[in-house]
Amino acid sequence: MSEAVRSVERQSAEQGHPLDSFFAPSSIAIIGASPDLTKIRGILLSFLRKNDYPGRIYPVNPSYPEIDGLRCYPTVAAIGEQVDLALVTIPANVVLPALEECAAAGVRHSVIISSGFAEEGGESAGLQQQIAELAKRTGMRVSGPNAEGFYNEPGRVSATFSPTVDIKPGESRLIASERRIGIVAQSGGIGFSLFNRGKAIGLSFSTIVSTGNEADLAAGEFLQYMVQDKSTDVVMLFIEGVRDPENFVRAAAQAAAIGKPVIVCKIGRSEAGARASASHTASMTGWNAGYQAIFVKYGFLQADDPDEAVAIAAVLTTAPLPKGNRVGVITVSGGAGAWAADTVAMNGLDVPVLSETLQSEIRALIPSYGSARNPVDITAQAVHTGGLQRTIELLNESDEVDLVLVVTSMASDRRVALNPQALKPVIDSGKKPVLFYTYTLPSQLGRSTLAAAGVVVHAGLAPLGKALGEVVRRGAFQAPEGRAAVAQADARLVMRLQAAGGALSEHDTKILLRDAGVSLPNERLVADAAELEAAMQAVGFPLAMKIQSPDITHKTEAGGVRLGIAGVEDGRDAYEKLLAGVRSDKPDARIQGVLLQPMARKGVEFIIGAIRDPVFGLMVMVGFGGVMTELFKDVAYRPAPVSAAEARAMLDRLRASPLLRGFRGAPPADVTALASLAAQVSRFAAGLGEHMAELELNPVIVHPDGQGVTIVDALLVPAGGG
Amino acid sequence: MSEAVRSVERQSAEQGHPLDSFFAPSSIAIIGASPDLTKIRGILLSFLRKNDYPGRIYPVNPSYPEIDGLRCYPTVAAIGEQVDLALVTIPANVVLPALEECAAAGVRHSVIISSGFAEEGGESAGLQQQIAELAKRTGMRVSGPNAEGFYNEPGRVSATFSPTVDIKPGESRLIASERRIGIVAQSGGIGFSLFNRGKAIGLSFSTIVSTGNEADLAAGEFLQYMVQDKSTDVVMLFIEGVRDPENFVRAAAQAAAIGKPVIVCKIGRSEAGARASASHTASMTGWNAGYQAIFVKYGFLQADDPDEAVAIAAVLTTAPLPKGNRVGVITVSGGAGAWAADTVAMNGLDVPVLSETLQSEIRALIPSYGSARNPVDITAQAVHTGGLQRTIELLNESDEVDLVLVVTSMASDRRVALNPQALKPVIDSGKKPVLFYTYTLPSQLGRSTLAAAGVVVHAGLAPLGKALGEVVRRGAFQAPEGRAAVAQADARLVMRLQAAGGALSEHDTKILLRDAGVSLPNERLVADAAELEAAMQAVGFPLAMKIQSPDITHKTEAGGVRLGIAGVEDGRDAYEKLLAGVRSDKPDARIQGVLLQPMARKGVEFIIGAIRDPVFGLMVMVGFGGVMTELFKDVAYRPAPVSAAEARAMLDRLRASPLLRGFRGAPPADVTALASLAAQVSRFAAGLGEHMAELELNPVIVHPDGQGVTIVDALLVPAGGG
Repeated sequence: MSEAVRSVERQSAEQGHPLDSFFAPSSIAIIGASPDLTKIRGILLSFLRKNDYPGRIYPVNPSYPEIDGLRCYPTVAAIGEQVDLALVTIPANVVLPALEECAAAGVRHSVIISSGFAEEGGESAGLQQQIAELAKRTGMRVSGPNAEGFYNEPGRVSATFSPTVDIKPGESRLIASERRIGIVAQSGGIGFSLFNRGKAIGLSFSTIVSTGNEADLAAGEFLQYMVQDKSTDVVMLFIEGVRDPENFVRAAAQAAAIGKPVIVCKIGRSEAGARASASHTASMTGWNAGYQAIFVKYGFLQADDPDEAVAIAAVLTTAPLPKGNRVGVITVSGGAGAWAADTVAMNGLDVPVLSETLQSEIRALIPSYGSARNPVDITAQAVHTGGLQRTIELLNESDEVDLVLVVTSMASDRRVALNPQALKPVIDSGKKPVLFYTYTLPSQLGRSTLAAAGVVVHAGLAPLGKALGEVVRRGAFQAPEGRAAVAQADARLVMRLQAAGGALSEHDTKILLRDAGVSLPNERLVADAAELEAAMQAVGFPLAMKIQSPDITHKTEAGGVRLGIAGVEDGRDAYEKLLAGVRSDKPDARIQGVLLQPMARKGVEFIIGAIRDPVFGLMVMVGFGGVMTELFKDVAYRPAPVSAAEARAMLDRLRASPLLRGFRGAPPADVTALASLAAQVSRFAAGLGEHMAELELNPVIVHPDGQGVTIVDALLVPAGGG
Repeated sequence: MSEAVRSVERQSAEQGHPLDSFFAPSSIAIIGASPDLTKIRGILLSFLRKNDYPGRIYPVNPSYPEIDGLRCYPTVAAIGEQVDLALVTIPANVVLPALEECAAAGVRHSVIISSGFAEEGGESAGLQQQIAELAKRTGMRVSGPNAEGFYNEPGRVSATFSPTVDIKPGESRLIASERRIGIVAQSGGIGFSLFNRGKAIGLSFSTIVSTGNEADLAAGEFLQYMVQDKSTDVVMLFIEGVRDPENFVRAAAQAAAIGKPVIVCKIGRSEAGARASASHTASMTGWNAGYQAIFVKYGFLQADDPDEAVAIAAVLTTAPLPKGNRVGVITVSGGAGAWAADTVAMNGLDVPVLSETLQSEIRALIPSYGSARNPVDITAQAVHTGGLQRTIELLNESDEVDLVLVVTSMASDRRVALNPQALKPVIDSGKKPVLFYTYTLPSQLGRSTLAAAGVVVHAGLAPLGKALGEVVRRGAFQAPEGRAAVAQADARLVMRLQAAGGALSEHDTKILLRDAGVSLPNERLVADAAELEAAMQAVGFPLAMKIQSPDITHKTEAGGVRLGIAGVEDGRDAYEKLLAGVRSDKPDARIQGVLLQPMARKGVEFIIGAIRDPVFGLMVMVGFGGVMTELFKDVAYRPAPVSAAEARAMLDRLRASPLLRGFRGAPPADVTALASLAAQVSRFAAGLGEHMAELELNPVIVHPDGQGVTIVDALLVPAGGG
């Protein structure tokens, strides 16, 4: 046994994660191994050996006595030694018996590379179900099918046929940072392309795993592995749809708690994107909100494009998190510096004018036609006189900025403007992120020179701007304190809901809310004209009348609402007309009566709601109310229940939040009451558990500070009802 | 004289543009030429020769008898032959006498590379002013100072020291398209970096010009040149601030009329970006709206990042404009295809499900575990069986999509999935854009193989998505018909404005508007309590009262507004209290009286305004009204005046435009009346010419279709007043 194998085994023993022997197996069997290097079955063996896999390799194929100098076994059983991992590359229809054989032989884990399962539908999907059951029954963990495998770089395990792990003769590896990125990808193509793009700019990686169809091992469990894995400093996720949300959320919470950053690329946000992601075709409406809620809650950094993901990873692995959003831009080209300043500003960063003291220090280093304000235009001239290096040092030491962005040209393959020996101490100081963008395409010389100082040269401005926005947000992120509040089912509430029957009216909904302690206006349901006058007097004028029927969801559209009723006569008239109108329009609707409520005092309109996300369960929602909710989609979601403090943070994320703080001379609104109501509603919804599909309080009128809120309308849709 | 020189001269004679002999000079003098290749003065000569400049070169420097085998002249006068272009690279303080000498010797044009003029301020700025005057006086056109020069690729004129035009031994040029891009850049660094980035992916270029400080020749005039230049197929602009807006707008209109696409990168959109662009420090507030208005009006394609600009150029030079927004995505990786579908959808494209007929044709070409819906996942397998090529052909022929996006991996340096001989006929068919994205980094083999078919390999997904959004918009763009409406000053209106004195009240503003034929509600100004009752009866109840004073702009904040007055008694009371309140709060305000107006009927609130843009002059604005204007910045600008049809197009661009079409069961609003009012207001504002600074009608209540609009409030701020 080689030292490397022993080291891998020792490591596994120390860490003791069940997937250690999956990602760093002491032995690998290749089921279906072949000497044919044009086939996946041949490539697997070749890549394992080219990458110097330190463990034992057992090719399995009855057709060959040996492959590439290794003894080839007719069956797994014939190996006669412990196999940690089996790579399965045989046709779909013979996979199941081979897995049974592996399990019987005591193989711990397997990766099914073969395609033709759930993605094909029909009988093949059933095959996948049998694989899942086999894993449960035998305890052998299975990754895939339809997976591209994984690559564990520090462990030198290339259990994949991805050409990105091929070793090319004479190729030298660029290393700008030793901090390693682990990738969990629901697409092998994308997972390994992120590795490919990151490697090219000098990033280091721990493990890239492609999860395939996830018959057994799924993305959430792999995320858990990466979060606890000591060789992984930053995690990157490519997600189409999470199949094991409990694992996923637990891992996300753990990552937030220990401060390990997670970068996420979530696709399927458009209808067409979702159509391509088989996992989500069933649940289209607004379903992405649940993912957003989880990502925001746990401080994930989000990327919309592969280069954004790689840029975020590059910043995270070469720099500390920024302590604020103030950036000093140093440039050798006025235009490029201004463009960079625009770009970071669009991403929420601030490019403050530097103090006169600092400016005068900088002016001593640059030509008279430069600028020291910020962007600091040192001019091309100052590159050669040492002004660039000195200006970087000044801004790194200064407390006027939280990040430094150096904009320069790295195109030359003959000389580089910066000396890595001088630069390295600045980077190593770890005071703040010091980042480099080249507006020309960087030469290999440029990249390797700066890599020696621990610097990645960024060649894309938009991705870098996005990355800085995300790391600034992450820098300000606070992990949720303690354990997440748990959704407590409330048996009494559920019983009351069930007693109300299928669909609920506003009145039914409000009875449940009031019963749960939610403050509501003084309202009366009038089911008989004889009760009308007393009810009007009890409610007071001016008042509103609204038809109540479990069969009428959109009361206004049905002509079932009268507003601003000023007196008794008005009221009688309105009551009659309202009932008559609805009865003629909707003769079949079950009418409970007419709800009388006082006209609400003025204020700003918000919405509070709760919805059951098909993946992550109950979510609470706050948003700007009225017509605007739909038009500007200015809403925020969080997993329910939330505390009042969390609800307040949600409100702060809305574009309409200035309205709560007192906009254009208006008094500040009672945001405390609104946040507290959102928290209360989230607990109420959690109490109903899976019996609730949707709850909407809209509008909730927020009065000036100290004067509370008024819930004008409310509607609860029970699961399967409404 | 070489054939090339003759050809250049012949071309000039035929086209006859005054700048032909600037960009394709028959002879060039280098003022300050040097044999020292570490200096700009030495590099200029070296680059001219390396690029095989076909004309005559005259080094000018009294210190040398010859440089690099060329005779060197002590002065320009000593040359004794016609010099078309002088490149000036001597210190700032000796530039002016050198220019005088050039002009005296009959030099036609000059480029001042030297720095240290307006960008330095003080005395040096004065020097630049003198250069501008010299150009006017002598007729010698001057580019710069502080310019990086230009590069005319077809003419082989490298009048620049930019390292991007250096010729490296053994370097082969990738050419995917012969259609050429011309660049006008207010930053040499950026201009040549766009060239550098474009060249690397196989784009071709006509001329790249860096405009420097624009003492004489400015960006607008260079844009005019590019628009008429037959060797330029697509124009790219990098703009900090336009100094010759009339030239610029004329060129923009010409480009729109002849259908030559213009890509624009406009910086200075953030405060910090603007700070870095010296030209705009004086005019910060909202000034970017004018640029936006011009860009939209003339169909410019906008880029926020260098790679976006290059991606747009790549699409425009390798593909026809799309006829619609329906894209067929063909992918070899499910995840990458879904990501691409998401990205194009975010940019406004549609990824429609293909017809069953087309799907069944595709299914015959791909494995059973692929998908033919769209994205079309042909799987990695089908690449090798010819399915990729055939699927591309099917979608190219189909009328179900307007663009084809092929998502594949081009990383291999050994083989390429596509055969250029088979692909070229598809590209050459010119039916629709067929574009290629690689999720891995492309190899040179991949790039050059596809270049042979006329294809650029896109390696950035976000920039490509942005590019597709922009070309789809450009495909739907209609050039403004005929000549742009001209702002006609209205002498009578101006006189009336001047008669009104400095600041105007709402009432003053409305008198002017009414006088210009704008319909306004039936209102009464009451200056004496004795007139109150009659005025109230004339206006009718319920009514609103508003204090009128040129000194009170924010009437509501000053307690000067009472709404919903229901009867005479109410009215008397409100009138007294309103006047008393304002008099005690603002004792110095000149009170004109109280304006009585009927309470407006219901409707949706919009805003119409006009503002004088510091660069492009009068702009008309429409937007979503009320508090929302400020909060959601949902507004659109166009150069004034506009026609009702243009105003309608502006309204259609608003995010709030669904409100006009009848949102959530509401009746459609009278958008015809609103558009017609916007056009009328734009003519009114144009009539006031430079005497108006700002005009705002807010809110304008838009009633249901056929019921018109109500202007509730209006305020005109005269230039220098308000």
